[in-house]
Amino acid sequence: MPLLNKAHRGTPENPLNQLTALLKGDLQAVNTLILERMQSEIPLIPKLAGHLISAGGKRIRPLLTLASAALFGYTGARQYKLAACVEFIHAATLLHDDVVDSSDQRRGKASANSMFGNEAAVLVGDFLFSRSFQLMIEDGSLDVLRILSNASAVIAEGEVMQLSTTNDTDTTEEQYKRMIRSKTAELFAAACETGAVVAGRSAAECKAMRDYGMNLGIAFQISDDVLDYTAERERLGKSLGDDFKEGKMTLPVIRALAKADRTEKKFWQRCLSDLDQSDKDFKEAVALLHKHDTLNDSLDEARRYAEQGIQALAALPKHPLREHLKDLIIFAVERDY
Amino acid sequence: MPLLNKAHRGTPENPLNQLTALLKGDLQAVNTLILERMQSEIPLIPKLAGHLISAGGKRIRPLLTLASAALFGYTGARQYKLAACVEFIHAATLLHDDVVDSSDQRRGKASANSMFGNEAAVLVGDFLFSRSFQLMIEDGSLDVLRILSNASAVIAEGEVMQLSTTNDTDTTEEQYKRMIRSKTAELFAAACETGAVVAGRSAAECKAMRDYGMNLGIAFQISDDVLDYTAERERLGKSLGDDFKEGKMTLPVIRALAKADRTEKKFWQRCLSDLDQSDKDFKEAVALLHKHDTLNDSLDEARRYAEQGIQALAALPKHPLREHLKDLIIFAVERDY
Repeated sequence: MPLLNKAHRGTPENPLNQLTALLKGDLQAVNTLILERMQSEIPLIPKLAGHLISAGGKRIRPLLTLASAALFGYTGARQYKLAACVEFIHAATLLHDDVVDSSDQRRGKASANSMFGNEAAVLVGDFLFSRSFQLMIEDGSLDVLRILSNASAVIAEGEVMQLSTTNDTDTTEEQYKRMIRSKTAELFAAACETGAVVAGRSAAECKAMRDYGMNLGIAFQISDDVLDYTAERERLGKSLGDDFKEGKMTLPVIRALAKADRTEKKFWQRCLSDLDQSDKDFKEAVALLHKHDTLNDSLDEARRYAEQGIQALAALPKHPLREHLKDLIIFAVERDY
Repeated sequence: MPLLNKAHRGTPENPLNQLTALLKGDLQAVNTLILERMQSEIPLIPKLAGHLISAGGKRIRPLLTLASAALFGYTGARQYKLAACVEFIHAATLLHDDVVDSSDQRRGKASANSMFGNEAAVLVGDFLFSRSFQLMIEDGSLDVLRILSNASAVIAEGEVMQLSTTNDTDTTEEQYKRMIRSKTAELFAAACETGAVVAGRSAAECKAMRDYGMNLGIAFQISDDVLDYTAERERLGKSLGDDFKEGKMTLPVIRALAKADRTEKKFWQRCLSDLDQSDKDFKEAVALLHKHDTLNDSLDEARRYAEQGIQALAALPKHPLREHLKDLIIFAVERDY
């Protein structure tokens, strides 16, 4: 399978902007619903949820649901509610994730847990999660409920896997891939599939949309894990080297460990297992990843997933949105932030 | 409305034991399902969930679903799965609750968060919650889904309310009641209603079962809050005075505050708002509750809810289980542990 053109790397155009522009009306309908349905008579709930949800997230997951429904020519309104569900599940996950990671920052702002406390972040996450199911039940499709409840369970499994593999330098590439499929790609897949199901498409087309989303999610996460060692992440409100600091086992590190000599192995164990790090260790880590060329290796792996996602798109109707989804999966790998 | 006979107070017979014996076969089916469906290929999930779920919980909520279905003569098997759902929602709430309260103990054992870490407790709670929705969707009734997803959202709201009122000596009795309805009674109500819905009963009968559960939950929680100042709680693996230590605003305290003079107000504020407590303060607190007779007052309030629950039962078919449910709501108030 040919790799994507590496010349793409660093492309400044973000196809999300184009998708957002094309689906502007739909996205506004979703945003209105999100604001409306995150309300509660308990003031802390909309306050905390609003802090996260209105903090300028890219809404990539609900956009996938909208794009998928639109690509299949669906003209009803069910996708709005379900796209809001997808964003609520994502928001709940983020809230709990930040508690787990003890993160101070999210989307370039103080994280909800650092502002409102871990307790509130956990409980408002639970509320958004429940609200998401209430919305799905209003929609009334057991098929959609099955897809999204399954995604929720798989995401939780992925998050627990991440917890279990963090600081464990014996983590295998297979474990890593399973983990990112679960914690990241499953919701991309479910968001895409939901649009196709709402549009009443064939099982084959629903599966093709799901496969696209799954490959997009995997490619996106691998690229994200590479960027943690290379990018000017301040633009996204993240800082370089977060994964390293927390001892997260990502693809470039797992592959560098597989090629490591004794001294290098000890270095990784000290930094990632024992979290015994000094200021210059991150530089040394980046040098080791370059030495074994695992940053490029990992991106090539991400490109292979992107290729598979593009192949999945080929089974879908010809539509301008299909081209944008193709651009999006390329961008997910080739972006430099 | 006549109060329940106060002579009941301290009754040693626990009608839960009778219910458990009567519904033994049903409960075994539910326990088997619980064990089966809390499994995951991620070993930490059944390990942590099993620590909580097999720690000898009383299974009161699933028992309510089973009793409700049986009381209506339902002979199918749907109630097993749905009773397991109810227990999963409860278990998820407990896991998150213990993180919020930083509890070390649960059901007389080390709490899951103290053994496995807050992170794992949050994520396994999420998993159980998602798994619960998967089970409901397998059952396939949108009515049941509506009842239980609504309960989940309301519980989260109740937990956030508790967070907001803790340490706030201005908390009103109205706020307290709303909070315990949400965080505790709603799931009792939903568990009861689910049994009636599964049995295909009329809206009036479903509502009567729901009303019973709601009043049971409220009576149970008020009594629990009184017991925190009076009981030998070690038998339940809780310690006397936990609520006081955490500055939780419960009915006896709210009513004592309403009658407090200036010095007493300052005492409550120092202890509950500032959490500035010395060893003898708990004794002083109990003395103040006795001075204003708010422990008895609160129990009388619990008895009024129990009476309403018993009235709701009157609308249901005559059945031995109906008598046991009546005994249960009396016991919820009159128990001494």
